[in-house]
Amino acid sequence: MTDQPGGQVYPPMRRHEERLLLKVDMKRSSYCGQVTQKQIGQIITLCGWVASYRDHGGVVFVDVRDRTGICQVVFRPETGDVYELGRGLRNEDVVIVSGELVKRQEGAINPRISTGEVEVLAANATVCNKADPVPFLPGGHETVSEDIRLKHRYIDLRRRPMTEALMFRHRVTKVMRDYCDEHGFWEIETPILYKSTPEGAREFLVPSRLSPGDFYALPQSPQLFKQVLMVAGMDRYMQIARCFRDEALRSDRQPEFTQLDLEMSFVDREDVIELVTGLIRRLWRELLQVELPTTFPLMSWREAMDRFGVDKPDTRFGMELCDVSSLVAESEFGVFKDAVATGGCVKMIAVPGGGTLSRKQLDELTVEARQFGAKGLAWIKLEGDAGAGLMSGPIAKFLSPAIQQQLRSATGGAGGDLLLAVADKQETCWRVLGELRIKLAHQLGLINDHTWNFLWVIDFPGFERDETTGKIAARHHPFTAPLDDDLPRLETDPLTVRAKAYDLVLNGVEIGGGSIRIHQREVQSRIFSLLGISQVDAAKKFAFLLDALRFGAPPHGGIALGMDRLIMLMLRRPSIREVIAFPKTQSGTDLMTQAPSPVETAQLLDLHLAVVGLPSHGTTGSKLGATGSSA
Amino acid sequence: MTDQPGGQVYPPMRRHEERLLLKVDMKRSSYCGQVTQKQIGQIITLCGWVASYRDHGGVVFVDVRDRTGICQVVFRPETGDVYELGRGLRNEDVVIVSGELVKRQEGAINPRISTGEVEVLAANATVCNKADPVPFLPGGHETVSEDIRLKHRYIDLRRRPMTEALMFRHRVTKVMRDYCDEHGFWEIETPILYKSTPEGAREFLVPSRLSPGDFYALPQSPQLFKQVLMVAGMDRYMQIARCFRDEALRSDRQPEFTQLDLEMSFVDREDVIELVTGLIRRLWRELLQVELPTTFPLMSWREAMDRFGVDKPDTRFGMELCDVSSLVAESEFGVFKDAVATGGCVKMIAVPGGGTLSRKQLDELTVEARQFGAKGLAWIKLEGDAGAGLMSGPIAKFLSPAIQQQLRSATGGAGGDLLLAVADKQETCWRVLGELRIKLAHQLGLINDHTWNFLWVIDFPGFERDETTGKIAARHHPFTAPLDDDLPRLETDPLTVRAKAYDLVLNGVEIGGGSIRIHQREVQSRIFSLLGISQVDAAKKFAFLLDALRFGAPPHGGIALGMDRLIMLMLRRPSIREVIAFPKTQSGTDLMTQAPSPVETAQLLDLHLAVVGLPSHGTTGSKLGATGSSA
Repeated sequence: MTDQPGGQVYPPMRRHEERLLLKVDMKRSSYCGQVTQKQIGQIITLCGWVASYRDHGGVVFVDVRDRTGICQVVFRPETGDVYELGRGLRNEDVVIVSGELVKRQEGAINPRISTGEVEVLAANATVCNKADPVPFLPGGHETVSEDIRLKHRYIDLRRRPMTEALMFRHRVTKVMRDYCDEHGFWEIETPILYKSTPEGAREFLVPSRLSPGDFYALPQSPQLFKQVLMVAGMDRYMQIARCFRDEALRSDRQPEFTQLDLEMSFVDREDVIELVTGLIRRLWRELLQVELPTTFPLMSWREAMDRFGVDKPDTRFGMELCDVSSLVAESEFGVFKDAVATGGCVKMIAVPGGGTLSRKQLDELTVEARQFGAKGLAWIKLEGDAGAGLMSGPIAKFLSPAIQQQLRSATGGAGGDLLLAVADKQETCWRVLGELRIKLAHQLGLINDHTWNFLWVIDFPGFERDETTGKIAARHHPFTAPLDDDLPRLETDPLTVRAKAYDLVLNGVEIGGGSIRIHQREVQSRIFSLLGISQVDAAKKFAFLLDALRFGAPPHGGIALGMDRLIMLMLRRPSIREVIAFPKTQSGTDLMTQAPSPVETAQLLDLHLAVVGLPSHGTTGSKLGATGSSA
Repeated sequence: MTDQPGGQVYPPMRRHEERLLLKVDMKRSSYCGQVTQKQIGQIITLCGWVASYRDHGGVVFVDVRDRTGICQVVFRPETGDVYELGRGLRNEDVVIVSGELVKRQEGAINPRISTGEVEVLAANATVCNKADPVPFLPGGHETVSEDIRLKHRYIDLRRRPMTEALMFRHRVTKVMRDYCDEHGFWEIETPILYKSTPEGAREFLVPSRLSPGDFYALPQSPQLFKQVLMVAGMDRYMQIARCFRDEALRSDRQPEFTQLDLEMSFVDREDVIELVTGLIRRLWRELLQVELPTTFPLMSWREAMDRFGVDKPDTRFGMELCDVSSLVAESEFGVFKDAVATGGCVKMIAVPGGGTLSRKQLDELTVEARQFGAKGLAWIKLEGDAGAGLMSGPIAKFLSPAIQQQLRSATGGAGGDLLLAVADKQETCWRVLGELRIKLAHQLGLINDHTWNFLWVIDFPGFERDETTGKIAARHHPFTAPLDDDLPRLETDPLTVRAKAYDLVLNGVEIGGGSIRIHQREVQSRIFSLLGISQVDAAKKFAFLLDALRFGAPPHGGIALGMDRLIMLMLRRPSIREVIAFPKTQSGTDLMTQAPSPVETAQLLDLHLAVVGLPSHGTTGSKLGATGSSA
């Protein structure tokens, strides 16, 4: 990291003993990375870790590191004991060093670090703590497995990118809190020991000792509490809230995660969107020095699906979906014809330069398309220049020159491009081409990494049919208000009823979502009926919310932004684990503390609990014997 | 709350339809409590709840309330539909009302509210939601049981004191975060799904679904994580952290509570004390407009015990403890004599004006003294003026006039005062007189409620002997550093070793505590040996902290301030439940959500758990049958 001082000759130490004595206590005078040339000639005290040491036979150079950066310290033989101490320093020892700050000689300047033109001539030094040889060096360039990094997180966090991520995260939360405070939001804490509600993703249970046999649950979000706060008249609520979800972890999910949680009364969708847009703009301006546009585009869910196949479109590149059903309905290609005839459709994307893909690559795309639910994937290469109508590939011969010309013009494809087609139910066409579009854009390098494309997706369907049970289910949660215009169709045609829901999408990633909530109990009752939730069940699960709606609920709505993902995107990190101080692995394990772990039998007995039906290899002495089966 | 407008005649409505139409949407133009006389003549829109309504036959007066306060709205017959709507309003209906703001007539002015000189002439109004008759009126003066208030918290929080408490709490956290940010602290989130460690108070367990038979625990504090963050070089950490403690709840304890959690590197005790003193001064200045002294007194634990009998002395009043062992060692009173002779002591307090206590009251004090562990309580009344040496009471006759004179002068008692004496082990004398002192001060009205007496208690004993096991135990936690001077006595005389611990005390209540931590593994090992924690046990429980200490731990220390208690004291509320949005009862129940509650058998099976050995009345259909005994 630092320069080679070569044969530089250092001046003899100046006499500063008195000042030194005053300075030599635990108080640093400067952070390492903040030492500036203005301090040259002053005695400064650094506190930090030995980032590197080099003994040049006669002079020892030590880089001292703290959270702000690195500063070079020079130990010279004429300092006697101090020099000897310097010679004994090893990586990650904790030191306090004092001495005069001097300018480095010309050839010794390191332009890569902010303190590269200065160095401290050690006149006093203390070793606070010697370090054992560390499993890996925080300043090293070797590749360290993530498991090792997580196990020794206290070393990993000393790495510059991790330190910066935590500093950045602190600043993000500070800007958020300041912004919300300026806009009249009150930070209000909601309980973490919450009631078990068998809705949505699975929740963590917490056995109660005072009520044996009863359980709390950890909240998947403060949703109901923030609605209650609106009924309580708090008007504007915010919290950077910890939420919990006990499920097999998909990539980049954590069992506990953090969201900026907001709720406002007497607002409509546009108010929430305006407020959050303002917050995002402030974050980008203050933390990334990027000026975002005043407003972000609004796009209906339907448009997002039709054009991009997904409800969180990445608009940094084209390759939009094109419905060619009407063009190919009368073609000679049976697959296309049949799909349209049986009420499905045919959609295409034109992959720029995709004509160069090999047969092997095309086969791989087909395999992937099948994984996303397609029966197959048709491909056509566009030949020659735009004027020519030539297509090649296995199905080209089934398409008349007129149809070929129309497809070319409809998809906007040019010579050298590849058309990919899926003929299936609309939802399948969306899903398959939506996913392939993103995959190909990455593969072909079509994405400008320096773009921030924000987008609000609105007018989501309120409900969907559960494919396994056939029942109507809420797409968001059962408290989302339907669009006023669609409310009359709630019972007659619920799948066409849109919700007052909105998602904030950045570069194809959903970073937040929310809705205007139902504030009238009549509407809430109709929704519960639609969802097949009986009055008794509703009363059991949501009694307090239904009560709250009876006693004067204002119109209200809100949003939650995922902190981990937002910060990951802002820092362009590959994983949320890079922006969380102590993340868990995908199996939910904290490799540093080794949580979760078996507990003493006595602890379980005290809670009136027994572990039952474990797979035999999981049984340990500290668990009660199996008394039942989980089959 | 509002005035009686009497026979006031209102002018006919002005024509403002166009402006009104523009204004009639959901956006309020003013909060109710912020309407000012400057707005007179303007059309304003209020959004809120009907706080009260009065139909004066021809004119209807409605108070509209939001979180800021109340504004009076007048509905006049000439407004037709709007008037009819106004006549139909009932308490807690949610309304949006627009109209011109006018000055009230002289006799109708209400000086008790900030908007008492103005009112809105309703020209447009919408009822967002009708309310059922509420269980209690948020503006009412009737006494409502706390259970009812907690069950209907969405109504209770509309009460002015509760709304103010949540606003105040928001401001406290904002000031804290700003202060910490200015002082270089980074807000860093630590896990809530933590590892079970069988230390200290009992913890909540959370079964893991992905690792059946394993458990997380909810943290009693982020103690170990914040130490790890210091080892990781984060230098200054802060968090307003949720903590959990599963224990039979003493009065004013919550199973989940919030603390301002701080940790700093390269600091000593004085640095932490200075920083926190500055924070407290800023809070009092900005939120209470009180200028506290620049520094708060430091008092050693020993002095606190000797003078006040407790380690969190309330210094708002005197009645200090006085050790009279040497004075009474040779008296004729056997109890005193024997106590001193057997290594105990005799301590006294002089209760100002306590001579008026009746025999019954004195008997009650004796009963209480016994409850605190005393074998008895001796009392002596001081007669006449200060010059006279007369004492009365059952034991006066055993004390010679010389001793009486000395006692009077030593305790500072005057005529009419009462001397209370305990002869016992020193700890018992402290406890009994310390508690009686506080009780009597309240009873006799000796406490000035308008005083803020802050105090740092320092130099705590590091260890104590567990009275049941006879083993040495850490007084704070096993990571607290001993005073450097006392370290050599760690093995030879551990009970005299003082800790680098400090408590912040306000008016006799501990509002925070912390310590400088051990940063050297050798010292940590010596402490574990002393506490009888084997190397194996220590490695099992604290492996990651011990590892962290090996790999470069800086000197560090910190503190935690209890948010709930601090805010309760600042607002002079009688209970922490008055400053928490959704508190639990003393049995750990959330009366609004009914948590904790039984869960489905399937949920437990899924976690490989069974409820066992319940008392029979607690068994419900949703729990698995008992398969074991908790005896």
